[in-house]
Amino acid sequence: MLITLLTDFGLKDPFAGVMKGAILTINPQATVVDITHGITPHDVKEAALTLADSYRYFPPKSIHVAVVDPGVGSGRRPLLVVTEDYYFVGPDNGVFTLVFGEATEVVHLTSEHYFLPKKGGTAPREGLRAPTTGTFHGRDIFAPVAAWLSKGIAVSNFGEPITDYVTLELSVPVRDSSTVKGEAVLIDGFGNAAVNITEDDVSALYSINPAGRLAVSVGGIHARLMSSYAEAEGSEGLSAVINSSGRLELFVYKGNAAKTFGIKPGDPVTLKVS
Amino acid sequence: MLITLLTDFGLKDPFAGVMKGAILTINPQATVVDITHGITPHDVKEAALTLADSYRYFPPKSIHVAVVDPGVGSGRRPLLVVTEDYYFVGPDNGVFTLVFGEATEVVHLTSEHYFLPKKGGTAPREGLRAPTTGTFHGRDIFAPVAAWLSKGIAVSNFGEPITDYVTLELSVPVRDSSTVKGEAVLIDGFGNAAVNITEDDVSALYSINPAGRLAVSVGGIHARLMSSYAEAEGSEGLSAVINSSGRLELFVYKGNAAKTFGIKPGDPVTLKVS
Amino acid sequence: MLITLLTDFGLKDPFAGVMKGAILTINPQATVVDITHGITPHDVKEAALTLADSYRYFPPKSIHVAVVDPGVGSGRRPLLVVTEDYYFVGPDNGVFTLVFGEATEVVHLTSEHYFLPKKGGTAPREGLRAPTTGTFHGRDIFAPVAAWLSKGIAVSNFGEPITDYVTLELSVPVRDSSTVKGEAVLIDGFGNAAVNITEDDVSALYSINPAGRLAVSVGGIHARLMSSYAEAEGSEGLSAVINSSGRLELFVYKGNAAKTFGIKPGDPVTLKVS
Repeated sequence: MLITLLTDFGLKDPFAGVMKGAILTINPQATVVDITHGITPHDVKEAALTLADSYRYFPPKSIHVAVVDPGVGSGRRPLLVVTEDYYFVGPDNGVFTLVFGEATEVVHLTSEHYFLPKKGGTAPREGLRAPTTGTFHGRDIFAPVAAWLSKGIAVSNFGEPITDYVTLELSVPVRDSSTVKGEAVLIDGFGNAAVNITEDDVSALYSINPAGRLAVSVGGIHARLMSSYAEAEGSEGLSAVINSSGRLELFVYKGNAAKTFGIKPGDPVTLKVS
Repeated sequence: MLITLLTDFGLKDPFAGVMKGAILTINPQATVVDITHGITPHDVKEAALTLADSYRYFPPKSIHVAVVDPGVGSGRRPLLVVTEDYYFVGPDNGVFTLVFGEATEVVHLTSEHYFLPKKGGTAPREGLRAPTTGTFHGRDIFAPVAAWLSKGIAVSNFGEPITDYVTLELSVPVRDSSTVKGEAVLIDGFGNAAVNITEDDVSALYSINPAGRLAVSVGGIHARLMSSYAEAEGSEGLSAVINSSGRLELFVYKGNAAKTFGIKPGDPVTLKVS
Repeated sequence: MLITLLTDFGLKDPFAGVMKGAILTINPQATVVDITHGITPHDVKEAALTLADSYRYFPPKSIHVAVVDPGVGSGRRPLLVVTEDYYFVGPDNGVFTLVFGEATEVVHLTSEHYFLPKKGGTAPREGLRAPTTGTFHGRDIFAPVAAWLSKGIAVSNFGEPITDYVTLELSVPVRDSSTVKGEAVLIDGFGNAAVNITEDDVSALYSINPAGRLAVSVGGIHARLMSSYAEAEGSEGLSAVINSSGRLELFVYKGNAAKTFGIKPGDPVTLKVS
């Protein structure tokens, strides 16, 4: 069984490694894959978008663990979300906002015997001797629950179904007959800026005006829509492309669009046909 | 069998990957997990503390390879440390200081036929054709020894027992009836500063003065002891918590305590009950 | 079967994780190992040199996937390179320059049914439902081809043999009876600067003048050739060593040679015997 990890822990510290240790102590047969540990610290929205762009590329029945969790130790609930194809484990803070639409069941994790045992408590298994804490539920709750789930424990054993889970309010692009107004949402390591405008938005504009010319603009800068990065070879200006997640994306050929043009998440982006 | 890696190699270069290749060439069945490759270059003390905080979360009989090794190529010895639950492989430079207390056996690795063979030498196995070197014992000694150990080669085959291994002098907090004086020891990627004062120190102060109020101070700045990060929500000041490794830790809610308050390893920290 | 990944994707984004998902969806039995995702963005030469230093440390029949691919989406061909011991999958842009010398077969990947299927297309396997794109062939072409290859699909099924593949022009050191003139080629995370001068060049100078003394210089700075990093203990100046890949390497003991002495790839380095 495949378990993926998506966190804001970075790779300087042993946190991601320790989560893998906790998983493999419970289920030595599990395969653990990092989606990323590079989410901007505490940025639940970035995590929700990154998870949405990633989880479908994993085998059916994969268990996706997402831990961007500034509320760890507060009353925020730990969750297990079940969809037709996948499981998701993490905090109830909106990180699963883009998954809930497919959810067949959302469970509040209350069965503490599947957590890493507190000092002196009884463990679901020998070998995990550290105390649970109010600071590292990735190790103490989410990794162990994912591991037990990967061993075949039924979903209903982990807790109680709920329907009042937390969702983020994500901005939605505004579309009329000739324009779509959206915003930059994710800057990747190349400095490419993904926008919440999608391939479907582009298709809709084209279907209204099949002979039209599309223009993208952000902060007064205009960008041409290309079919690939390479099509912009030779240009040092801003270009746009439909990226591999089906989003409009601003880029500079072999350059860093976000740095060069100062693009940040939240910046308004307009797509216009004329 | 599980083999973990903890190094200061970073992730820009292929060094960690090449160690995995060396392991999997000898034992294709091994599972290799990164604890971290983000130790500050050459910082053996940071490595010793990080290993101490991590190794117990892995399954019994895991083999922990720790390579922070500025003395590579000098006379410093390569070691195999055996405890009741784990194996440790790495240089004799103090990186295992916090493990030796549990050691049942410490072996100086002298059986060179378990190392990556020198050019033209005879290999323990085909397919490893590169020379051993004076610069990369992670690949040439520690990874191969861990791999052969994971295949069931007995500890006694790897070399000679020793007792004069190197240990670091780690500062120990000083405790009286109302205060504990320690120091910051580890800064994590969130900017949280772990201190060498432990949960037991806190308990001891409370047991002397159960009704007392605890105050933490570092460089003239005071911090309140919280039960979780989330309890400090709304505060932009310095707070403290017992972290997931049982250490006192200084933090700023959704902030970076080390940067904001200029906290570095070695800075004195006082815990006082009044 | 072992599949390795070498890219310039970095670890902030989910790209490397998603490639693993694509591989494990096709072949859940594959072992996937990161060589590195830290290649300087778009630097095909650095990727070619890093791959050359790494691939031999993996088990025979490993499949090495290298994706540094600024031309993604252009006409540049996707390749499968076969050598006696290994397979290589990636773009035809010179990233395999140092592998072609051992190649027994170079195949242009044209069999699209082994790619990640386009939206609405027929898939080689259920569960991969995302569209192929002009921006992420790591996920859509190279990972799936490596996965199918690891399941035993014969090389000839993937496309057509070619001989006109792209190679980089890599600078070669110039040697006379007393000097070798080369250049820095790779800066690692410690700030060590690897040079294109090799162990064989050093041996050749010694064989001409066995009693000679070797001197290394770069930008007017002189460095002594040591047998290990540790031999330079106590020195804060520039030293040299034959590194673990058999290259001459400039370093500062427990320091950062590239930063301290401003060494960059391309800087001329001279090795002289006198």
